[in-house]
Amino acid sequence: MSTANLDAVFNPRSIAIAGVSTKAGHGQLGGNSYLDAMIRCGFKGQLYPVNPRGGEMRGIPVYPSVRDIPGHVDYVVSAIPSAGALQLTKECAAKGVKAIHFFTSGFSELGQPEGIQLEKDVLSVAREHGIRVIGPNCMGVYCPGSGVSFLADLCSDSGPVGVICQSGGNAIYVAREAARRGVRFSKVVSYGNASDVNETDLMEYMADDPETGIIMAYIEGVKDGLRFKKALERAARRKPVVVLKVGKSESGARAAASHTGSLAGSDRVWDALLHQVNAVRTHTIEEWIDMAVTFSFCSKPMGRKVALLGLGGGATVLAGDEANNEGLEIPGFPEEMRRRTAALLGSEAGTIINNPMDLSAEAWKVGYHPVLKVFSEYEDVDFSIVHFSVGLIARPRELHAEIWDKLLDDVVRAHGDFGKPIVVVIQMVTFSEHYAWMVQAREKCYGAGIPVYNSIRHAARSTVRYERYSQRRLELGT
Amino acid sequence: MSTANLDAVFNPRSIAIAGVSTKAGHGQLGGNSYLDAMIRCGFKGQLYPVNPRGGEMRGIPVYPSVRDIPGHVDYVVSAIPSAGALQLTKECAAKGVKAIHFFTSGFSELGQPEGIQLEKDVLSVAREHGIRVIGPNCMGVYCPGSGVSFLADLCSDSGPVGVICQSGGNAIYVAREAARRGVRFSKVVSYGNASDVNETDLMEYMADDPETGIIMAYIEGVKDGLRFKKALERAARRKPVVVLKVGKSESGARAAASHTGSLAGSDRVWDALLHQVNAVRTHTIEEWIDMAVTFSFCSKPMGRKVALLGLGGGATVLAGDEANNEGLEIPGFPEEMRRRTAALLGSEAGTIINNPMDLSAEAWKVGYHPVLKVFSEYEDVDFSIVHFSVGLIARPRELHAEIWDKLLDDVVRAHGDFGKPIVVVIQMVTFSEHYAWMVQAREKCYGAGIPVYNSIRHAARSTVRYERYSQRRLELGT
Repeated sequence: MSTANLDAVFNPRSIAIAGVSTKAGHGQLGGNSYLDAMIRCGFKGQLYPVNPRGGEMRGIPVYPSVRDIPGHVDYVVSAIPSAGALQLTKECAAKGVKAIHFFTSGFSELGQPEGIQLEKDVLSVAREHGIRVIGPNCMGVYCPGSGVSFLADLCSDSGPVGVICQSGGNAIYVAREAARRGVRFSKVVSYGNASDVNETDLMEYMADDPETGIIMAYIEGVKDGLRFKKALERAARRKPVVVLKVGKSESGARAAASHTGSLAGSDRVWDALLHQVNAVRTHTIEEWIDMAVTFSFCSKPMGRKVALLGLGGGATVLAGDEANNEGLEIPGFPEEMRRRTAALLGSEAGTIINNPMDLSAEAWKVGYHPVLKVFSEYEDVDFSIVHFSVGLIARPRELHAEIWDKLLDDVVRAHGDFGKPIVVVIQMVTFSEHYAWMVQAREKCYGAGIPVYNSIRHAARSTVRYERYSQRRLELGT
Repeated sequence: MSTANLDAVFNPRSIAIAGVSTKAGHGQLGGNSYLDAMIRCGFKGQLYPVNPRGGEMRGIPVYPSVRDIPGHVDYVVSAIPSAGALQLTKECAAKGVKAIHFFTSGFSELGQPEGIQLEKDVLSVAREHGIRVIGPNCMGVYCPGSGVSFLADLCSDSGPVGVICQSGGNAIYVAREAARRGVRFSKVVSYGNASDVNETDLMEYMADDPETGIIMAYIEGVKDGLRFKKALERAARRKPVVVLKVGKSESGARAAASHTGSLAGSDRVWDALLHQVNAVRTHTIEEWIDMAVTFSFCSKPMGRKVALLGLGGGATVLAGDEANNEGLEIPGFPEEMRRRTAALLGSEAGTIINNPMDLSAEAWKVGYHPVLKVFSEYEDVDFSIVHFSVGLIARPRELHAEIWDKLLDDVVRAHGDFGKPIVVVIQMVTFSEHYAWMVQAREKCYGAGIPVYNSIRHAARSTVRYERYSQRRLELGT
């Protein structure tokens, strides 16, 4: 089947949601949350809630069954118990539905004969009628361009990042958290048990998808190693592919088997494969999201020579160690450059005028703009990391407007004015006020095209991975 | 001099603060913030603000100079410019002051002959009159037991953790952030340039200090390697010592030299020394704080066999991988235990009933208490990690009270009821509401004696370090 009918999944003209409840919303995931999600994400086609009792929800009539829906139905979201899944599939077949997403769990992932058989039976009916199945046991599809969504709070703007994510929870997390860091999505697919549509189909689809420029894959296991390898190779030749392959350990693999029935496979084989095709491998979900941020905001090779700028002597020493540990070079500044910077400040007391640089005592007088100008004119530095260690400030509420906002505005201006890449780190978040400041600071940065990370370590690791990817791409001629 | 007169630093009867400003508070660090800090931290002795113009602040008379103070002065905090430091020291000598803390910077750390000479001159006068000097170029002392503090927002309760932290910014961060995770301090000292009181003096003092049960040291460099080694060895025989030795890289060492005039020394020598004396080495400030949490809440060896419990299939797979990667063992549960757990749940759909365990679909019905009871009765598990992946929940505000709070209360009750150690992880924080929930959830946990970490990785790394420390202690017979 491969990518056949997948367009109906991402761009359906009409969606039926089986398993809504006309009782007052209880906030749990299920039919109602899917209905809310589609409405809030601006789905333009017809929406048909389905419940045997009928009635009305959000001003839309509820149909007793899929067969009772008057119009044509492209796509069905099932949130009914697994016992009704086969009957629903048959009704969908009769209705000419093109794809069903089963949020419903209770199939092969339980490891019991009944669930395995049920999944087979559902698939058999679906295949017979050319219906694509997403899942079962997953969150399904978020495609902001068409208004398909699995949660009401997801961003309704589109972007270049396509996500293939077996896990529903991790799909939720990446869709939320990466969005808060400026990442925008073409489509996010949580495909659970992968009974039909699997990682390979999605890799093939996204490799060809003109709306997807960056592919992110969270993989617990693959069904057909050889086919996946080909699909990955082809995708990685066309666009950056970032892989979070889990189930590396015995306990992780055991959990993956129980979670989505996946066989994790040898971790060494995965390492070799990913290296060979120049897909970027990450090891935690934070690192994985970091690479979505990196590829979203960086378009040409950045190099590895970095200038580090921030407040706090101790934070500066740590920054130097951590950036270096991840593989960045932090060249000491030449005498002339230090003299120019010192001249800007007037006094050097309480500062470190070198690389890494700490402007603690003087930052609020001079600001970062003139300093970043000096950095930008120094050829031996490829880019700058500016770190905001917000937990160091004396009185969070009073000082935000005065100091941190000014410094952040300086960074945004410098990024526009001088043309040399700047990366921002917001770290040492302690109070709720710091977190709130971080949220709006991130928005300001990504609005200006600046990537933001949660630590020097994460920023350095990501930029080194990006540089390695770029270099390897040149070598491979892709 | 070693530890002579250090009692006057931590338990002064009276404090003069030179360099307050009677102009409206501008929120910056300096004399006024020290005065506020002492008042808010409940300093019981006499407080004497000093400014040549005199006047009154916070209802307290301001004296034109230290000499003009009517009563006896034990301890002086200097926030005046460095140009006045020598004169101030002479006045303190005439007044019979026992210790001066120079928040003031502009001394040897600038690497210029004038600053180096000034620091020598100040020290020479101080030594001649038996005055101890903290700094210059540092935050100084936070000792909640006596009400000495360097920031007004620091916790006024005491506890067993003593911190030796050359950097002022990092001292602020640890004092704030570790406190928010339940760590309470005996004393925190930021000693900057270490012109007099240095890491070795403080290590000796804290080794003997009955109020300090755990020593945390952030070190950029030491003045006298041999003496430090002896002090460290002696301290580590008596209590846990956790070291964050920075300046590992060339750029970090360069920054350390400029920050506090420190020579970082060979990193391999440090590794060998710390291993030899069984001091715990950490590599980031987060890991360092993690160990303060760990030693504050764990009192006996915990073992390495862990049961992992949480919500979210993907989060669970990742948890298994990350815990294993850090060196924990995650034994698969035997058939009987899985049967008992499954019986509690009724349905296994959308769960993973093994180790690691995911109760996603069923958690809110059953809760964690009965599941943790089953864990506690299983001998092949030493402790449990329960992870709250708060970014996975559907509607943050609605669901907190219903689900996460109930689950957290279950963990707290189980910790009290079953006697087997439990560790909590709160991760995948996305929205400001999650952060706010985390803040109060941490308080609930530490109030019940449960340590909280920010990721499985950090929890696992810390418990493995703790276990290694405990084992080594048995081997060394300390």
